[in-house]
Amino acid sequence: MAKLTARSEDYSKWYNELVVQADLAENSGVRGCMVIKPYGYAIWEKMKEELDRKFKETGHQNAYFPLFVPKSLFEAEEKNAEGFAKECAVVTHYRLKTDPNNPQKLIVDPDAKLEEELIVRPTSEAIIWSTYKNWVQSYRDLPILINQWANVVRWEMRTRLFLRTTEFLWQEGHTAHATSAEAVEETEKMIHVYANFVQNFMAVPVIKGLKTDSEKFAGAEETYCIEAMMQDGKALQAGTSHFLAQNFAKAFDVKFTNKEGKIEYAWATSWGVSTRLMGALIMAHSDDKGLVLPPLLAPIQVVIVPIFRNEEQLAEIDNVVFDIKAKLESKGISVKYDNDDQNKPGWKFAEYELKGVPIRLAIGPKDLENKSVEVARRDNLTKEVQPLENLDTYIDELLKTIQTDIYTKAKDFQQDNITKVDTYEEFKKVLQEKGGFISAHWDGTPEEEEKIKQDTKATIRCIPLENPLEDGVSLISGKKSIQRVIFAKSY
Amino acid sequence: MAKLTARSEDYSKWYNELVVQADLAENSGVRGCMVIKPYGYAIWEKMKEELDRKFKETGHQNAYFPLFVPKSLFEAEEKNAEGFAKECAVVTHYRLKTDPNNPQKLIVDPDAKLEEELIVRPTSEAIIWSTYKNWVQSYRDLPILINQWANVVRWEMRTRLFLRTTEFLWQEGHTAHATSAEAVEETEKMIHVYANFVQNFMAVPVIKGLKTDSEKFAGAEETYCIEAMMQDGKALQAGTSHFLAQNFAKAFDVKFTNKEGKIEYAWATSWGVSTRLMGALIMAHSDDKGLVLPPLLAPIQVVIVPIFRNEEQLAEIDNVVFDIKAKLESKGISVKYDNDDQNKPGWKFAEYELKGVPIRLAIGPKDLENKSVEVARRDNLTKEVQPLENLDTYIDELLKTIQTDIYTKAKDFQQDNITKVDTYEEFKKVLQEKGGFISAHWDGTPEEEEKIKQDTKATIRCIPLENPLEDGVSLISGKKSIQRVIFAKSY
Ligand SMILES: [Zn+2]
Ligand SMILES: [Zn+2]
Repeated sequence: MAKLTARSEDYSKWYNELVVQADLAENSGVRGCMVIKPYGYAIWEKMKEELDRKFKETGHQNAYFPLFVPKSLFEAEEKNAEGFAKECAVVTHYRLKTDPNNPQKLIVDPDAKLEEELIVRPTSEAIIWSTYKNWVQSYRDLPILINQWANVVRWEMRTRLFLRTTEFLWQEGHTAHATSAEAVEETEKMIHVYANFVQNFMAVPVIKGLKTDSEKFAGAEETYCIEAMMQDGKALQAGTSHFLAQNFAKAFDVKFTNKEGKIEYAWATSWGVSTRLMGALIMAHSDDKGLVLPPLLAPIQVVIVPIFRNEEQLAEIDNVVFDIKAKLESKGISVKYDNDDQNKPGWKFAEYELKGVPIRLAIGPKDLENKSVEVARRDNLTKEVQPLENLDTYIDELLKTIQTDIYTKAKDFQQDNITKVDTYEEFKKVLQEKGGFISAHWDGTPEEEEKIKQDTKATIRCIPLENPLEDGVSLISGKKSIQRVIFAKSY
Repeated sequence: MAKLTARSEDYSKWYNELVVQADLAENSGVRGCMVIKPYGYAIWEKMKEELDRKFKETGHQNAYFPLFVPKSLFEAEEKNAEGFAKECAVVTHYRLKTDPNNPQKLIVDPDAKLEEELIVRPTSEAIIWSTYKNWVQSYRDLPILINQWANVVRWEMRTRLFLRTTEFLWQEGHTAHATSAEAVEETEKMIHVYANFVQNFMAVPVIKGLKTDSEKFAGAEETYCIEAMMQDGKALQAGTSHFLAQNFAKAFDVKFTNKEGKIEYAWATSWGVSTRLMGALIMAHSDDKGLVLPPLLAPIQVVIVPIFRNEEQLAEIDNVVFDIKAKLESKGISVKYDNDDQNKPGWKFAEYELKGVPIRLAIGPKDLENKSVEVARRDNLTKEVQPLENLDTYIDELLKTIQTDIYTKAKDFQQDNITKVDTYEEFKKVLQEKGGFISAHWDGTPEEEEKIKQDTKATIRCIPLENPLEDGVSLISGKKSIQRVIFAKSY
């Protein structure tokens, strides 16, 4: 394998190389669409599994709605339609035929033109709320708490593996409620579910907050988000939860009779995370040797590499390792024993470092004599010798320690790179020299927000939910402000 | 809820009503596309989970490939392209814009026409083999054993919920091998995996066989299939596994250096099952009262209904039921306690019969006195009183018995409805009067096959794998034949 470009040299190049070399994903023959390779997909599956468990725990059920949205439904909620119109893949025909000029080739059959074009869903509010219309008559039919795992398509001009692709995989929750308060509660509940997952499983600290009106979801009244900091100091929006008020209910005429016998429109939320989380996971922890995976999401948690000169030595090592492997697996730890004799141990060490396997055990003839094993941690690259006795307990604990340590390291980095500034001069200086997140006062207007974006490319990532009130003056207009918001350049 | 049409009256109407009334799926606002509702999706999730486990057990990994196939890739394997060209949804544009004549509406932006059209995948051989080209250089890169869970689109003119929909969910395995023998072995292995799943989990007996050339997959050398019998005697193809030989490797130039240093094309298989299995599950077991679900796929295995006159009685029953529920759940049994006081017990009984919950427990004041409970089986509608003592063990065993009994009943029905015939007269008479599968001699020509299809609408479902050799003469041409094949009308 080729050596990765160093992060310090070219962070963006490092990322692109890492995704491909670690077998996570690659570009496909379809513009802007990726192939998620088995190792990358195995990590995504672990994310899905845990998120799905959390959704069900909070009372949601999965369902499935059509890939296509007829144009008339798509355009029903005006703001949502406007927000996505410029990036829609459109199906216009339903048949191909043999090219009369070239019988080896196919052409679109002009006789098979659709009366109404179909939009490949960029998000499913429209198709889902047109369905909910028939499900809701009375307050007894509410709430509807549904999630969908699906692919969506947004025609992106500049794409990057996992971070921004034309097609991506995601889950989208779509709930309907009898009251505004209940819908707001749901919106907030789900942003907390996301924050817990990203922090506890992905080991990525986040800031929970509200989007400003210019950054919120098209069709939402409020967008809650979690913002994560990458190692280059840029922000990555890792999940969003939208309070949609009655916008979609009005667009699709979803009404119900409330407890008092009055007819009302239903209240909506939607919330989603996507394969973008893979990008966050990679960029938050990995280093110049490759991936660093938190144990809770690692497809292989422990790899065992035998060090041997001949068949006899390997046979002896095999014996001991089968026992170690069985014990670890009985504790629910996933283990790979790589006793392939084509590749040298050094090659294997580099390979599993690239793949981010949290713990590597190396065992040779001397270890057999000493009844010990070399234990190497991927996260901090330390090594130590451990007795074989009670190794399973030791590894089990070590995996927990690594999970915590990876989070702590990322949390320290985040804290060190949130800078409070009070003047626009300072803002620009910090952004250019140090980067990271900037905590500053803002006057609440889209004008000041836009001016800062034009000048510096930094946007307001969020108004943090857990925000201390603090009097101040805004960066440009100098108007009074009662709280700081988070600015950053972002992915 | 409305009463279901009886199967004897109108089988097809019964099916359509059942799917909707049992909350499994419904038609959507998109032509030919369905909404899979939470209860239906929960059954599909159980199928997925078990199939996924079996795929991984047999060495496969999941991955994900793009939804879109550029036309030039789509047409590369000629037979495959020909087979699907007439039912392709085609994306031709990537943007909408505001209608200048009606600013509330959107129109397709003619400036955003794609240079090359994109086909929404009807199956993924083309996109996957164009990817494998870059993954395979040496025999050491083989085999590739990949599965994908995905949605696919085939533009169907006549659609029916689960059985035939324009968009459906499925899994598609796509493997690449160094030798023909290994690919054939894989093809056969997977048809056995499917047969085991359908028989042991869905409790639906199947016949494993080979498709005739006129019925095989477009682009395959051989198609293996499993054929299930529905209660109306018609056949439903429940899964297929294709030996693709080197057809796709040649179309996409996937070559490798073999152990002897020679360059060869890789050998391929593909195999899939879809949400069509839901149709098979429903039609194989259900009755005029609703669904009958085998316990291994039932989202709710046991429902408990309290019989009470007042709050005090309900409180006493609650106490006992919480204990029963905990004990059953500790055995891994999924239990719903429906102590809602809006609906009467009779309503609940009918509701859970409609939903196919395998076991219903009813418990009232008299049962409390006697320390007993009424146990009702959904499959055969029998009831009995059981002591509360050791109820969990009893229920656990009963679920296994029900699973077996449902299979046995379906197997008996299948056996009773496979008829051997030796003349074409008899063939037509049996098909018309009794229906079911017909086991008969065939001369091996597409001409005789086609003639029978034209005359009777029955097709050759398969040439059974476990087929005794038997000399005979074919139905129409009177030519010699060495084995019988299975004819039937089919879904
Ligand atoms: Zn706002
Ligand atoms: Zn053949």
